[in-house]
Amino acid sequence: MNEPLTLSVADEELALLTDLYQLTMIQAYWKEAMHDTPATFSLFFRQLPPSRRFILACGQQHAAATLSQLHFNAAAIEKLASTERFDDDFLSWLANWRFSGDIWTVPEGTPLFPHQPLLEVDAPIAEAQLLESLVMNLVQLESVLASKAARIVWAAGNRPVVDFGMRRMHGIDAAVRGVRAYKAAGLSGTSNVLGGLRHDLALNGTMAHSYILAHDDEPSAFRAFARHYPNTTLLVDTYDTLQGVRHVIDMLRDIPDLSVSAIRLDSGDFGQLASEARALLDDAGFSRIKIIASSGLDEHGIADLVAQNAPIDAFGVGTQMGVSADAPVIDLSYKLVEYDAQPRAKHSPGKINLPSRKQVYRRQDTAGRYTGDTIAQRDETDIAGEPLLRPVVKNGVVDPDVMSPAQQATSRVADTLPRFPASVTALEQGESDYPVELSDALKHLSSTV
Amino acid sequence: MNEPLTLSVADEELALLTDLYQLTMIQAYWKEAMHDTPATFSLFFRQLPPSRRFILACGQQHAAATLSQLHFNAAAIEKLASTERFDDDFLSWLANWRFSGDIWTVPEGTPLFPHQPLLEVDAPIAEAQLLESLVMNLVQLESVLASKAARIVWAAGNRPVVDFGMRRMHGIDAAVRGVRAYKAAGLSGTSNVLGGLRHDLALNGTMAHSYILAHDDEPSAFRAFARHYPNTTLLVDTYDTLQGVRHVIDMLRDIPDLSVSAIRLDSGDFGQLASEARALLDDAGFSRIKIIASSGLDEHGIADLVAQNAPIDAFGVGTQMGVSADAPVIDLSYKLVEYDAQPRAKHSPGKINLPSRKQVYRRQDTAGRYTGDTIAQRDETDIAGEPLLRPVVKNGVVDPDVMSPAQQATSRVADTLPRFPASVTALEQGESDYPVELSDALKHLSSTV
Repeated sequence: MNEPLTLSVADEELALLTDLYQLTMIQAYWKEAMHDTPATFSLFFRQLPPSRRFILACGQQHAAATLSQLHFNAAAIEKLASTERFDDDFLSWLANWRFSGDIWTVPEGTPLFPHQPLLEVDAPIAEAQLLESLVMNLVQLESVLASKAARIVWAAGNRPVVDFGMRRMHGIDAAVRGVRAYKAAGLSGTSNVLGGLRHDLALNGTMAHSYILAHDDEPSAFRAFARHYPNTTLLVDTYDTLQGVRHVIDMLRDIPDLSVSAIRLDSGDFGQLASEARALLDDAGFSRIKIIASSGLDEHGIADLVAQNAPIDAFGVGTQMGVSADAPVIDLSYKLVEYDAQPRAKHSPGKINLPSRKQVYRRQDTAGRYTGDTIAQRDETDIAGEPLLRPVVKNGVVDPDVMSPAQQATSRVADTLPRFPASVTALEQGESDYPVELSDALKHLSSTV
Repeated sequence: MNEPLTLSVADEELALLTDLYQLTMIQAYWKEAMHDTPATFSLFFRQLPPSRRFILACGQQHAAATLSQLHFNAAAIEKLASTERFDDDFLSWLANWRFSGDIWTVPEGTPLFPHQPLLEVDAPIAEAQLLESLVMNLVQLESVLASKAARIVWAAGNRPVVDFGMRRMHGIDAAVRGVRAYKAAGLSGTSNVLGGLRHDLALNGTMAHSYILAHDDEPSAFRAFARHYPNTTLLVDTYDTLQGVRHVIDMLRDIPDLSVSAIRLDSGDFGQLASEARALLDDAGFSRIKIIASSGLDEHGIADLVAQNAPIDAFGVGTQMGVSADAPVIDLSYKLVEYDAQPRAKHSPGKINLPSRKQVYRRQDTAGRYTGDTIAQRDETDIAGEPLLRPVVKNGVVDPDVMSPAQQATSRVADTLPRFPASVTALEQGESDYPVELSDALKHLSSTV
């Protein structure tokens, strides 16, 4: 094929995963002796996608830790030299470069609203600029997927949701790192072996239609699979769903040694089929056998089934969640907000940003319900509420005492989402009435920079 | 963080990037001594997304070559053992497994319609099943992105299109391998350094707003950048686009040694701003300076600008292309179509597939215009047209004589798209009238299996 066959991107290559202009701008700063001037960049979004009422910030700690390790190895420097855009002196500087700044992030699994930073970088401008493209790519993926998954988990209430979507996701990294975002959002399991093993989410799996089709008939396939896997899940819709359920019942009556823990519906009208399947199973004395539904489900389909009390015990979700089909992108921006201790802002139409380093304060009432946020300058004092941004990297080094364990993201989401007003967690399109204000000082600054 | 910090997925780990049920089904086949039964699986889509009139098949040769190398190394076997779902005997078999079958694909960059295979695998059923999840993930990504990018390139006509979307794409693999798909679709360049270097697409880059904001004023920033980079592109919209253009003109008049090859508009009404900027530049004698537009563009925005003859010389596209926002997923299926030399098909409502191994024949008239396709059984003879599927992997080994070089994909797209009727290449939502028929034999078989 005359092309590299490897699909892998090594951690060592990540410094080159950037937009060319970052490197040309940094070389320009370096030539102008501006590269060491202190700066702050802020990662935020200006507006929510129409189908989202909050973004679940995810991946920003993971990204911060990665960015603190970033460097250009000899192979990367050689590749840059081959582009004939960079001076040898600059490349020598780049070869010795390590990130020396601070990175502030909100904890993974924090629901955020427009103009609230997910992450801020305080560093010499060349260093902060160097991180832009990669930090946006990394945080985008996990936040897009976690935001979608959180809605699906919310819709399902206390019924488990399992990820079946690996095949639909955008490539290898999305499939593997996506499981990390799903775990934060509260999924119960995944079919994705590598993703589940790497990010410690339970592995789930049933069977595919091809297994049924490879056998002479459905009963033979069920018998063979149930013999190999006690308490397995059988897929019943290959030919006719209710006939499939009857085949399961007949098998369990004929061969009492076999056991089945669940059946999976993968097509048709889930509400009706689940009710009819439940009745068949209950009438036959198999009320312990659970019903799992999968295929084409998203938060709206799940909410409908839950509202009609469909007897479905767990949901498998794939396509819609795997690409966050209704909002595959967040309008993330990474903007210079402070340069040489002076606040900066961009004034392009529709692309304004708030100047200066920031902190977000989240207030709650005595019952623990969130009542509103204030976006303030980072050094303001006496703002009510819990500050959300913390310095997870200091002077280029990860601070393990500040960085919250990834495992905590899951419980954070489960704990915090119910404390927001219903207008934040509502699934239909629309805006929440959750108050997010600017501090007086930030308001004043924004009108003057 | 108590979690692995690496973001990379090594080629050696890819065998584990699968859905758990593939492995449990294969173990079942193995226990039933069915694993060596010959089978054929077909990768196709049942329907087009509403906003697509064809899918540009991309990544299937790349995937075939990868799949032919797949194996479970000792670390992978150990991880599977840790799940306590697999017998030692089976894991020994898996450790020694290598793909031994054939893989047929259409050439990269082939426009396809529903039910036409992108790829077929002839192999013992356990082997073909083992490839399912990974082949779908790999081909999905490149075909989704190439299909979107082809529309954008088509809309731009002879004006170059450059990829600026790395930061919006779904993770590392999407960003890097996406450039391969963009190249096939005909993009002229990319800002993505690692993607461009790996997949041999020209690197392009301009400057960001932060560079302007880091300087005392726009003219200082322009002067500094133009001094470092002769014939560069300057971003003119940070404060006021037309004022920015005037700053460029003033600079070039004041300092004749400096040169600028283009200006970039990144916000506002591109049609109007481009006309006004063009007039300013032309009046000042700088008609050689080109105008590049970027920000929020997709094929529809570009087609509008082209239709109104906006004096824009090149387009930079990011978000909409990077996630294929209007169609982030293709409804790909990988289905068992033949087992033990017998055709198979699934009958679930809305999920039917055509039985048997297939070939697609594409007919053209004497002027080279495509006139229609026939989907046939693979062993049929006397079907008119060019057969699209070729065996790129035989007995587990890539056949370099059959596999077309990746570079050819670009010229294939450029050559073939104009030969389809306008209803195939039209950008608005709707269906083409391009005829795709089943052969009589396949029609008959479909009604009887």
